[in-house]
Amino acid sequence: MIKKILIANRGEIAVRIVRACSEMRIKSVAIYSDADRHALHVKKADEAYNIGSDPVIGYLNAHNIVNLAVAAGCDALHPGYGFLSENPVLAEICAKRGIIFIGPSAKVIQQMGDKIEARKAMIEAGIPVIPGSEHNLESVDEARELANKIGYPVMLKATNGGGGRGIRRCNSEAELIPNYDRVVSEASKAFGKPEVFLEKCVVNPKHIEVQVIGDSFGHAVHLFERDCSIQRRNQKLIEIAPSPQLTEAQRRYIGDLAVGAAKAVGYENAGTVEFLLDGENQFYFMEMNTRLQVEHTITENITGIDIVQEQIRVASGLPLQYKQEDIHYRGFAMEFRINAEDPKNGFLPSFGRITRYYAPGGPGVRTDAAMYSGYVIPPYYDSMCAKLTVWNLTWEGVVERGRRALDDMVVYGVKTTIPYYQEILRHPDFRRGQFDTSFVETHPELTNYVVRPPKDMLAAAISAAIAAHLGL
Amino acid sequence: MIKKILIANRGEIAVRIVRACSEMRIKSVAIYSDADRHALHVKKADEAYNIGSDPVIGYLNAHNIVNLAVAAGCDALHPGYGFLSENPVLAEICAKRGIIFIGPSAKVIQQMGDKIEARKAMIEAGIPVIPGSEHNLESVDEARELANKIGYPVMLKATNGGGGRGIRRCNSEAELIPNYDRVVSEASKAFGKPEVFLEKCVVNPKHIEVQVIGDSFGHAVHLFERDCSIQRRNQKLIEIAPSPQLTEAQRRYIGDLAVGAAKAVGYENAGTVEFLLDGENQFYFMEMNTRLQVEHTITENITGIDIVQEQIRVASGLPLQYKQEDIHYRGFAMEFRINAEDPKNGFLPSFGRITRYYAPGGPGVRTDAAMYSGYVIPPYYDSMCAKLTVWNLTWEGVVERGRRALDDMVVYGVKTTIPYYQEILRHPDFRRGQFDTSFVETHPELTNYVVRPPKDMLAAAISAAIAAHLGL
Repeated sequence: MIKKILIANRGEIAVRIVRACSEMRIKSVAIYSDADRHALHVKKADEAYNIGSDPVIGYLNAHNIVNLAVAAGCDALHPGYGFLSENPVLAEICAKRGIIFIGPSAKVIQQMGDKIEARKAMIEAGIPVIPGSEHNLESVDEARELANKIGYPVMLKATNGGGGRGIRRCNSEAELIPNYDRVVSEASKAFGKPEVFLEKCVVNPKHIEVQVIGDSFGHAVHLFERDCSIQRRNQKLIEIAPSPQLTEAQRRYIGDLAVGAAKAVGYENAGTVEFLLDGENQFYFMEMNTRLQVEHTITENITGIDIVQEQIRVASGLPLQYKQEDIHYRGFAMEFRINAEDPKNGFLPSFGRITRYYAPGGPGVRTDAAMYSGYVIPPYYDSMCAKLTVWNLTWEGVVERGRRALDDMVVYGVKTTIPYYQEILRHPDFRRGQFDTSFVETHPELTNYVVRPPKDMLAAAISAAIAAHLGL
Repeated sequence: MIKKILIANRGEIAVRIVRACSEMRIKSVAIYSDADRHALHVKKADEAYNIGSDPVIGYLNAHNIVNLAVAAGCDALHPGYGFLSENPVLAEICAKRGIIFIGPSAKVIQQMGDKIEARKAMIEAGIPVIPGSEHNLESVDEARELANKIGYPVMLKATNGGGGRGIRRCNSEAELIPNYDRVVSEASKAFGKPEVFLEKCVVNPKHIEVQVIGDSFGHAVHLFERDCSIQRRNQKLIEIAPSPQLTEAQRRYIGDLAVGAAKAVGYENAGTVEFLLDGENQFYFMEMNTRLQVEHTITENITGIDIVQEQIRVASGLPLQYKQEDIHYRGFAMEFRINAEDPKNGFLPSFGRITRYYAPGGPGVRTDAAMYSGYVIPPYYDSMCAKLTVWNLTWEGVVERGRRALDDMVVYGVKTTIPYYQEILRHPDFRRGQFDTSFVETHPELTNYVVRPPKDMLAAAISAAIAAHLGL
């Protein structure tokens, strides 16, 4: 069994991995930039090492990080999500230096990271894919020709992209031409590779993804699906497990598809197969994420399985603890990404000192936060500062619990997405469990909420008024 | 359905009830003494009313509280636990004033509160009881005679007692005589009634209790059992659901017994049937608690059922949502009562300002706290300031999760029972799931822990030392 893990990440996911290590009696080693000196993951890990004054470069330097892992006596490395997590180079360097990489092999990361390669592998495994490029586009002319063949709208995508970046929808040739250059440029900047490809645009699909996990003995299982249709500009905001929009037959169908995909590529460790579901109930493979995902918490809630611990076990060479027939889901879980952003101002990041933080409590509430009272959110990183995950036996119950828990949560000092989520929870379509990826875009009025005073002040005012009225 | 509830309580349980109300869109009304002006339940409720300058008297004045409920437009009252929760007078006044009392009828509270009456009812329902008094003791002579007949050791108990108070073990006649006066005196002071009775002492039993809930249609179900054997002087410290010490056959047996008992007395709302389990695997009825219990959280965790919401539903006149065959448990849950006490100093209460509070997070962790950073714990009330509830699919997993979550929790400014619980979690008998009510008393060495510096300081020191050694 692995004994000491370097966590090549920061923020809430680094804290999440520390917690799994602690429960498994594995030593955890954090890394931090100067800007992260006071970050929670640094406080919670058993050891923590500074990786330089630049806020970002240190987290992206695979060689230095693996050197540090070796020097600190680690036998494994967990990449979290983002940063180097889907960079096959990190997995390769780990392998060379005798450090267990907690994730799939460099080969599979490479293959699934290349969207053209991934498409090919899925077609071979019998998984339905979206009509589109069989290879990288050579020129805007080729793009135009293919788009005309499969019909608009089309999506232009970075071949090595992921996480919702490097994607543009083109409704016509007039949009395709300028977008081609934009996506090539974004792809070069964000992923270091300029290759792009084109797919038919599935209009207003639902985003349904399946959590899978495989071991080194060729076993693979799924942990049911997540509905991540509530997104803004391809960035997920609220995720739900299981999807309230699937039948049991659909659930079984995509579960089987995902396990088939994982086995076809010899997938080890945790991964996610993402599908689009169109208005005709047709599923299409979108991409495979070869890492732990932000929203793994909701799957943990409904299945009871600790995905990070399971990742560490299979990376240690142990077989999966669960057979497919042992894995059951119960109730509904919903995750809210608490971003330090101002929804009323175009979701502009809102950094600074958290003057007061209170984590919501009570039944069915889980928080994974990277903050505490007095913490200063640095401006250099992703704006997500906490995840709130709620669970209830029923769909109606989980919606009400979400509302209550968001109300219960106190984050003062920065603007957050909390009041915006309260509006989403009030919307009748959402409450009926009917929404697709166009929901946020087609409901711009949801940012028109009135900023309310904190609940405790409100309660005091109401009580005083009533008491005066009653002569109490 | 009930629309507005006065919560006749304070602390974490008042916050718990506010949360249930919020999820059900029921208005919540808090009450508070001057000492509780800044308490969390006051901040979280929709309305809050001051009930006087004395820290305690206001919470015990049933007439005033019901008057306030009427004046504030409430249609129901939730008593929580402690204070007036098991006082039939409150239920009676509510009934007279048209306020729904969220609990059983005054008659059943009265009957179960009188331990002699309760014994009789249980004998009639075919529930095994401990050999002992058939009526209240008239004198120390009668106590002596009965004790000689059933054999020492015996327990002297306040007939109207509960919650572990007004109980003394007598190993011999020499102990019985002075204890008789002591228990009579304690009973008068704590419960306002001097009556006492006597039972055979079940030596080193396990404390196993069953959660039941009944509706106004004569239905009753159980929600499995809790093992509350980890107690100090009859005060529970750690509770576990389900008990790791029962077989499935035993679980079914006491579940059926408890439902039988509830039905026999026409029990409505949530209640708990407490049993002792002796070394010969014999269960004995101990008492029935006619209210919500502190440790209801672990039952919620394993069954997924929100007990407080279910209380409110059945009090509203709705039938139970669940049939017995729909109620299942999954995994193990463990609750730690985080008391502001110094275990190294005889568990002396430790009140004052919480200089820093951080609620633990991550998978399988629930907190029900009555505090926040900067809150001053007043010296007038119970020392329990938070409950930490953890869940995991397995027994081994829940023990490790408990250890991790206790480690994760930060409460500075007062001494707490957290480090003491860490010692219990380290003990091999506890880890094997083998313990009875003598565990705490027979392991006084568990308070001999070394107070460690906060983990973040420790991590920094270790990292600095290693970095220096490695020349990093």
